[in-house]
Amino acid sequence: MATYVPPVRENNPHLPFGDQRGAPFYGKDILSVKQFGRPELEYAFAVAREMQEMVTRVGSFDLLKGKILANLFYEPSTRTSSSFTSAMERLGGSVIPINEVHYSSVSKGESLPDTIRTLECYADVVVLRHPEIGSAALAAKYARKPIINAGDGVGEHPTQALLDLYTIQEELKAVNGLTITMLGDLKYGRTVHSLARLLSLFNVKINYVSPEILRMPAEIIEELDEKGIPQAEFTSLEPVLADTDVLYVTRVQKERFENLDEYESVRGAYVITPEMMQAAKDWMIVMHPLPRVGEISMEFDDDPRAAYFRQMEYGLYVRMALLAMVLGKA
Amino acid sequence: MATYVPPVRENNPHLPFGDQRGAPFYGKDILSVKQFGRPELEYAFAVAREMQEMVTRVGSFDLLKGKILANLFYEPSTRTSSSFTSAMERLGGSVIPINEVHYSSVSKGESLPDTIRTLECYADVVVLRHPEIGSAALAAKYARKPIINAGDGVGEHPTQALLDLYTIQEELKAVNGLTITMLGDLKYGRTVHSLARLLSLFNVKINYVSPEILRMPAEIIEELDEKGIPQAEFTSLEPVLADTDVLYVTRVQKERFENLDEYESVRGAYVITPEMMQAAKDWMIVMHPLPRVGEISMEFDDDPRAAYFRQMEYGLYVRMALLAMVLGKA
Amino acid sequence: MATYVPPVRENNPHLPFGDQRGAPFYGKDILSVKQFGRPELEYAFAVAREMQEMVTRVGSFDLLKGKILANLFYEPSTRTSSSFTSAMERLGGSVIPINEVHYSSVSKGESLPDTIRTLECYADVVVLRHPEIGSAALAAKYARKPIINAGDGVGEHPTQALLDLYTIQEELKAVNGLTITMLGDLKYGRTVHSLARLLSLFNVKINYVSPEILRMPAEIIEELDEKGIPQAEFTSLEPVLADTDVLYVTRVQKERFENLDEYESVRGAYVITPEMMQAAKDWMIVMHPLPRVGEISMEFDDDPRAAYFRQMEYGLYVRMALLAMVLGKA
Repeated sequence: MATYVPPVRENNPHLPFGDQRGAPFYGKDILSVKQFGRPELEYAFAVAREMQEMVTRVGSFDLLKGKILANLFYEPSTRTSSSFTSAMERLGGSVIPINEVHYSSVSKGESLPDTIRTLECYADVVVLRHPEIGSAALAAKYARKPIINAGDGVGEHPTQALLDLYTIQEELKAVNGLTITMLGDLKYGRTVHSLARLLSLFNVKINYVSPEILRMPAEIIEELDEKGIPQAEFTSLEPVLADTDVLYVTRVQKERFENLDEYESVRGAYVITPEMMQAAKDWMIVMHPLPRVGEISMEFDDDPRAAYFRQMEYGLYVRMALLAMVLGKA
Repeated sequence: MATYVPPVRENNPHLPFGDQRGAPFYGKDILSVKQFGRPELEYAFAVAREMQEMVTRVGSFDLLKGKILANLFYEPSTRTSSSFTSAMERLGGSVIPINEVHYSSVSKGESLPDTIRTLECYADVVVLRHPEIGSAALAAKYARKPIINAGDGVGEHPTQALLDLYTIQEELKAVNGLTITMLGDLKYGRTVHSLARLLSLFNVKINYVSPEILRMPAEIIEELDEKGIPQAEFTSLEPVLADTDVLYVTRVQKERFENLDEYESVRGAYVITPEMMQAAKDWMIVMHPLPRVGEISMEFDDDPRAAYFRQMEYGLYVRMALLAMVLGKA
Repeated sequence: MATYVPPVRENNPHLPFGDQRGAPFYGKDILSVKQFGRPELEYAFAVAREMQEMVTRVGSFDLLKGKILANLFYEPSTRTSSSFTSAMERLGGSVIPINEVHYSSVSKGESLPDTIRTLECYADVVVLRHPEIGSAALAAKYARKPIINAGDGVGEHPTQALLDLYTIQEELKAVNGLTITMLGDLKYGRTVHSLARLLSLFNVKINYVSPEILRMPAEIIEELDEKGIPQAEFTSLEPVLADTDVLYVTRVQKERFENLDEYESVRGAYVITPEMMQAAKDWMIVMHPLPRVGEISMEFDDDPRAAYFRQMEYGLYVRMALLAMVLGKA
C-alpha cells in the first residue's frame, strides 16, 4: 500500500479527441494528486475561478451541453455524487446516475473493466467511486474515455484534495507561508494524506494532531520531509491552535476501527467548540471534508471562520473545472 | 403533536434573489397548508392552470432552464418523487435524485441540517420527504434556498393537499357549495387532515366516514367547527353517498396499525365498487391519493367519475407551479 | 408459456398523437420481436444508422428535447437502464429514473397497471423491466403512452434481440447467407430465443451448442423448422466453429438453476479462449449480451473478432431509434 503509485495512463490513441490541442488534462484521467504540480494546480484553479464567476452570474450555462457523465458509485456517497451531478448539470450536460451497483450486474459477478467498457459506450466521462484501492487506475487502464477517481478505498480522493486546496487559496488568498494543522484521524483518512501531498508543493508548515493510534503514516511524513516541509506531531491541539491558519478537522470513523472501545476512547477527544476557538486567530479558517458527526460543535457554525460549508461550494467549482478540462472545454 | 405549527421561515436576507419583487412565495419555503389563504390559493392555481395549458400545448418549456432541484427522499415514494422530477424537467430544469439516503452519509450519522446545507451548495431548491414530523421546518430553518415539504411523517404533505383542492376546483369548476365525504383512515392520514384544513377556507360541508378507531382527530374537527364548517361523522358510507359531490377515499395503511387483527378487521370495510356507486350522483367525483390497495375496485376505473388518475396529472401542474413560484419565475 | 403471444395493443384512440401520420411504431408499444417483419426491421435499422451517424458527428442532438422517459426497473439492470438513459439524453430528452421499486409504492402492494397509469401522467414514454412474463403486455393494455419492454422475466427482451441483429448486420454487412452458432444456456436465455425468431426472417443456418439440460426449447426449433431454417444441435463447439460466421455466447446463469451442482458442472464447459478461436474464420464475430462471468476469456478481448463491446454501442443507436420512432420523431 505504502508504495502504491497509480499507473497514470498515457493518452489513448483511440480516444476520439485525444490530446491534440495540448490543453492540460484534455482526454486524460484524473486519478491521483500526483498528476498535479504547481502549473497544473494553477491552471485547474483558474478554470475553477471562471466556473465560480459564471455560476454566480448565471447559475448554469451550456458549456458541456450534449455531454454525458456516468456517475458510477459502488459505495454510497450522497455528497460527492450530488456534487458531480450538479457540476455536470450546471454545465448543461446530462448524468447517468448509477448508485445502486450492489443491485446491478456487479452483483452478478461482472468485472470492473467490463462495466467500464460498457458504460463508456453510453457516456463521455466516467466518475468512479469504489471501495478498493487501485480500482480507478484499473478502470482507466481499460477505458477509452476519461475516468475521474471519486475515491478508491483507502487510496486517493484527488478531487477532494483539490477542492480543499482551492478552498485554502480562495479563503486566505495564498497558500505559501501558512501553518496548516490537521486534526483527528490522520492514519486512515485518505483526505489528509492527499492534501498533505498537495501542500508539499508550497512553502507551508504542517502540524499533525491525533491520538497515538491514529498518527499520520510515517511514509507521508518522510515524503514531505524530503521536500523540506516543516512538520510536527502533537496529541493535543492546544499548543498549536494559536499559530494555526488552517485547521483541518477530520472525522474519526467508527468503521475504521476493529475495536469499538478504541473508537469510543478517541471520538470525543478533539471536538471543536466556540470556547476553544477563542484561542485561535481571527482570520484563520476551520475546514472539514464532511460529514461530521460531532467533531465540530454546531454552535461554531455561525462563526465566520467556519469554512466547511463554503468548502462544499468550492468543491462544485473545482469539479466543474475538472469535467470541463477532461472534456476539452476548459 | 396536536398543536404543531411549523415555524414558517421569514425570507432569508442571504437569499440571492429574496422577495424583492413581491411575488408570493418567491424565495419562500412551502412547508404547510397553513401558509395558504384564499388569495395564495387563487394565485397558485392560476399558475398551475398556465402550466397545464403549456404542457398540453408544447409538453415542456424552458422556464427553469439551468435551475437544479435536489429531490431528497429519506422515505421511498416513487409517485411523489417522479412527480417532482417530471415537474422540474417539463420546466427545462435538472434534478439531483437522492432516493437511497439510507445508504448515504445519513447512515454515517449526519444531521439533516448539515445535509441540507450541503445540498443547497449544489441545488436551487430542495424537495424533502422525511419520516419525522417537523423535519421540513427544521430544514428550512437552516437553508438559504427554498425547501418544499413533500411529506414529513404524520406532519404535513402540503403539495398533496394543494393538488387535491386543485383537482376539485378543475373537475367541478368550484369548491363553494360542495359536499365532501372523506372515507377510510381519517386518523393517521395526513392527506385528509391537510385537505380538511384547506377546505375550511371555503363554504363546504364535510362528512367523515371511518371505523370507530380511525376517526378524524378531534382537534381538526374543532378547528373546522370554529370556522363554521358543517361536519358530520359516520361509520358507514350509505347514508351520505347520494349527497356527496367529492368522495375522497384513503388507504387503510397496514403500517399504521400496531395490531394486525385490527387492520384486517377494517381494511375491507370501505371498498368502492361500480354497484355501490349507482347510488351516487352522475357528476360527482371519486378521488384517492394513491397508491390504492383494493379500496377502489379496478372495475370502477372506467367510470367517468373516477378522478384519481386525473388527480395525478393535476399534481404535475400544481408542482410545476410551486417550483416556478419559489424560484421567482411564475 | 410455450404459446404465449403478447396482445399487441391497437393504437389507443386517446393517445394525443396516435398513428395518424402512418409512421411505423408511432405511438405504438414495443413489446415483442413478433411485431417486426423485414420491412419493420429495415425501417428501424435505417433510423438506427442515422442515430449512429449523428452521435459520431455531434454526440447529442435535440430531437426529443422536452420529452420525458420513465425508466421503470423492477429488476436491477445497470446495463439496460444506462443504455436507455443515455439514448434519451443523447436525443436531448429527460429521464425519470425509477430503479429502486422494491422500496416504492410497489412494496406497499400497488398493482402494475396503477403504477403505469401514474407514471404516464409524468412521462411521454415508459421503458419497463419486470421479472414476470407478460408484464409489459399488461402495462401496455392500460397505458395511453408507448411502453417499451426492456425484459419481462423469461418472456421477451425485444430491444436486446434488435440490437443483436443490428450488430450482425453492421459488422458483417448482411444477414442472409450467414451461419450463426448459439452457445451456452439456450433453454433459459430469452435473448437467444428472441434472436432466433428474428433470424428466421432471413436465409440463415443456425447451430445450437449447449449441455443436454440447457437445449433450445423444442417449440422454438419447431417454429423455425416451419419457416425452413436449417438448424442443428450439438453438445460441443468444435464441429461447428470453423463454419461459424457469428458465435453468440450466453452466460450460464446460476439463478436459473435449482441445483447448484448442476450449475457447477456446466459453467466451465464453454469458455472462449484465444487458442480455441484459432480454428475460427478471420472475419467472423463473437457476440455476448453481457454481463459475462468467465464465458469469454478477457485475453480474447483485443481480438478484432470480439464484437461484444461494439454490440453495446450498437445497442445505444437501436434504442435511440426506438425512442424516436414511438415518439413520432424518427
